[in-house]
Amino acid sequence: MGKSAELRHTDVTGTLPSAGGADVLFWGSLFHSLDRGGSFLQLQIRQMIVTAIEDGRLPLGIRMPSSRDLASVLKVSRNTIVIAYEQLVDQNFLVSRERSGYFVAGLPKHIGAATREGVVAPSDADERWAGRFALKPSATRNIVKPLDWQAYPYPFIFGQFDPSLFPTNDWRESARAALSVPEINNWARDLIDGDDPALIEQLQLQVLPRRGIRARSDEIMMTIGAQHALYLIAKLFISPATRVGIEEPGYPDARNIFGMLTSNVVPLRTDGDGLVPDDALESCSLAYVTASHQCPTAVVMPLARRQQLLQAARARDIVLIEDDYEGELMPEGPELPPLMSLDRSRNVLYVGSLSKALAPGLRLGYVVAPAPVIKELRALRRLMLRHPPLNNQRVAALFIGLGHYRTHLQQVARVLLERARILDRLLPEHLPDCTWSRGAGSTHYWLSCRPGTDTTKLAERARAEGVVIEPGDVFSMDENASRHCFRLGFSSIRTDRIEPGIRQLGQVIARTR
Amino acid sequence: MGKSAELRHTDVTGTLPSAGGADVLFWGSLFHSLDRGGSFLQLQIRQMIVTAIEDGRLPLGIRMPSSRDLASVLKVSRNTIVIAYEQLVDQNFLVSRERSGYFVAGLPKHIGAATREGVVAPSDADERWAGRFALKPSATRNIVKPLDWQAYPYPFIFGQFDPSLFPTNDWRESARAALSVPEINNWARDLIDGDDPALIEQLQLQVLPRRGIRARSDEIMMTIGAQHALYLIAKLFISPATRVGIEEPGYPDARNIFGMLTSNVVPLRTDGDGLVPDDALESCSLAYVTASHQCPTAVVMPLARRQQLLQAARARDIVLIEDDYEGELMPEGPELPPLMSLDRSRNVLYVGSLSKALAPGLRLGYVVAPAPVIKELRALRRLMLRHPPLNNQRVAALFIGLGHYRTHLQQVARVLLERARILDRLLPEHLPDCTWSRGAGSTHYWLSCRPGTDTTKLAERARAEGVVIEPGDVFSMDENASRHCFRLGFSSIRTDRIEPGIRQLGQVIARTR
Repeated sequence: MGKSAELRHTDVTGTLPSAGGADVLFWGSLFHSLDRGGSFLQLQIRQMIVTAIEDGRLPLGIRMPSSRDLASVLKVSRNTIVIAYEQLVDQNFLVSRERSGYFVAGLPKHIGAATREGVVAPSDADERWAGRFALKPSATRNIVKPLDWQAYPYPFIFGQFDPSLFPTNDWRESARAALSVPEINNWARDLIDGDDPALIEQLQLQVLPRRGIRARSDEIMMTIGAQHALYLIAKLFISPATRVGIEEPGYPDARNIFGMLTSNVVPLRTDGDGLVPDDALESCSLAYVTASHQCPTAVVMPLARRQQLLQAARARDIVLIEDDYEGELMPEGPELPPLMSLDRSRNVLYVGSLSKALAPGLRLGYVVAPAPVIKELRALRRLMLRHPPLNNQRVAALFIGLGHYRTHLQQVARVLLERARILDRLLPEHLPDCTWSRGAGSTHYWLSCRPGTDTTKLAERARAEGVVIEPGDVFSMDENASRHCFRLGFSSIRTDRIEPGIRQLGQVIARTR
Repeated sequence: MGKSAELRHTDVTGTLPSAGGADVLFWGSLFHSLDRGGSFLQLQIRQMIVTAIEDGRLPLGIRMPSSRDLASVLKVSRNTIVIAYEQLVDQNFLVSRERSGYFVAGLPKHIGAATREGVVAPSDADERWAGRFALKPSATRNIVKPLDWQAYPYPFIFGQFDPSLFPTNDWRESARAALSVPEINNWARDLIDGDDPALIEQLQLQVLPRRGIRARSDEIMMTIGAQHALYLIAKLFISPATRVGIEEPGYPDARNIFGMLTSNVVPLRTDGDGLVPDDALESCSLAYVTASHQCPTAVVMPLARRQQLLQAARARDIVLIEDDYEGELMPEGPELPPLMSLDRSRNVLYVGSLSKALAPGLRLGYVVAPAPVIKELRALRRLMLRHPPLNNQRVAALFIGLGHYRTHLQQVARVLLERARILDRLLPEHLPDCTWSRGAGSTHYWLSCRPGTDTTKLAERARAEGVVIEPGDVFSMDENASRHCFRLGFSSIRTDRIEPGIRQLGQVIARTR
């Protein structure tokens, strides 16, 4: 409260002497974070006034500057201020008094009059809590990407979408349509264990057929991203005695999810054709597979191997979780059908994602599975969180239904293919010490450096020079097995940054020799 | 494919003889679900054409009707059709040929050319799957509300929001602001285990202080509705040996979540002051409490009982999960501080919700807890689904930041208080056989009928006459204990429907004597 008390006694009158002084300083500080280049200037100003009233910097009775004065201080049109003030009067944050201006109305009384006291949090010793937890999820080994990757000039990271590829106008059109009154009535409800039927229908009509998959509406369920689909499936199928197979190297998040539920996580061998259906697989009742592009080696499983795998699953009654995590992102050459579309014995549960192609922040994934599985997954999801937000489901349904999803995928594919072609040319030239794999349609390369290389250290050095890559150790259960490898993604880096980025990376690697 | 083949051979030419015939029938059927009263007519038409192209009803090369003819068939302005056609040309769904009109372009080749074959799902026997599941979530006893409750004239159900109270214009303003390019760049990202800092800040500034709670940003985490918060806390704290207390009667979803993790779920006695801090509580290491309004009895826990409870928690080191599920919805009389704001020994984890006041379909809840707990909850949430969709977090941050949340709560409170006053007057008159409780600020009543009444049957009979109530059995661990009780909510029923609804309900109850 120190700061706000100090500001209070400056006795702000709302008249702004153009010569400067405490008043100008005060009002200037109130709006110091105004982004004049940003849109919605009037909204920003309103938000700042509301915030200052809420946190006590603008107490009851204070006269606001005249619209002319504030407009001049903030260098915005006077009309912007007038509209903002009038809206705040409508909301009872300000009152207007004829000929004397706008005054802070103080906060309406009947909400929250009670207990503004609150508690000040004492510091909490970690140890005090640690003994109470049934598990310690923070101890899992995870993929680490810098959250501020957009600040680096050469972010070769995977799965973080390039904002320049976001279909802004088409998404806006769909989002606005979902704000009509009848649409709001559709999505505002709690559907308990349901999903938006319009989105399920669009998946059936426009999304799944591209992967050769037909499904009834009771065979599909939406999730909060593909990750959530994996979690729900794992929770439904895995008890402490369950043997679960995961590709080695493989997807760390899947391994971590399985590892929370059973100590019998079995590494499954992979080769240049992906997962090898051997005895280890046959010892499992559940296995995680990335047939379209093996995570992280990016190899494509050939048709014959897919058939072998399905045959093993049928013979041993193994449930396969197929994570088709970027199945449709970048068609390149002849496409192979996912396991789900080849499976005649119904051993496959299919996990897909809409947000990967659009924006990971949206978190829209789905599961396709036999109806009895979906029924239990829905009951489990109901317990856990009911359903993914319905407004986003409806926007996605409109976006797909209006043909924008198809158009968007074409646009994305064009850009990604161009990037892949550039990298195919640059890697041999600038990274001569490395070998790599990237199957058709994959948006990343998996590179192996000279034996003995520690790519965690390499990634640190590269990052210091603006290049972000993902070290390989975390992808293996035995972290030494892939310590000399790294993942190089190209879905988040601007096309014109690829060449200087690879050049830079090549120099970093050369220096580590 | 039968249907589409049949339509194909009608040899549609796109000329629509005004006299009628197969052509008119075909085009009419294509647009039969057009909602002329709805907004976004042009979008609807585009969506129907895209759908028909995608599912094969409009094959490659078909000539579309002229804009004049289609406009006349659909009774819309010709310009609407022209705009729709032009947009579809831009998206390559149609091609325009000079002087001869618009033709279906067929689908762009390079996506999904592969495997349109797909599999037809064989029927899946439940038994085949049942043996593979580690749990059977569908077997839990749940609150059952008809999904089509809006179709009943008198929906006295709890927690399903009245669409007429949704702040349409203010929400739209916030949602549109979140569609600016800089905002999209903010929310399109994957934040791994993070949340939108702007929303956390608004909770700290505008939402929590009303409940007397101050929290640092590392003491708050967003969830997919309050249900998700309960699930995460339960998962973090409960092992099979953990004794978890739940109020009896109590919230079935919490009981179900706990019951999935431990068989030691302990019913805790409640009285007219809410949860009783007795030996049963002291035997637990974790307990679920609804102090503000006990679920389902709706009684308010007095200050002295709150202090007793906190003292017991401190003495026995019990973690209390406080579900403040409608703490701020309807201030009525002097407000009592939640346990969290009275707790000096940091034994309380607080669960709140934004979507209850706005729209349950949005699924926006949150947890306030000591930082070491939030740290583990974030790691767990990361494994489970990463984070709640960021676009919704940003819209909510703008909505609160612009003062709309405060204004909306006042508006909602006014309407709900009026409804409560009407019910306070009507219940003694029309339901003389029942007794009831409703503490200040609760949006539902808990009614007890004559001993021996089965409210499941009563609810069925009432529903047949248009009145929806929620039977009480599911709220108790011993389902016979509250079989004669029911919950009567008033947040979803229009104010003018309350009187005829209660009259009707009174007649149904009178007839069961």
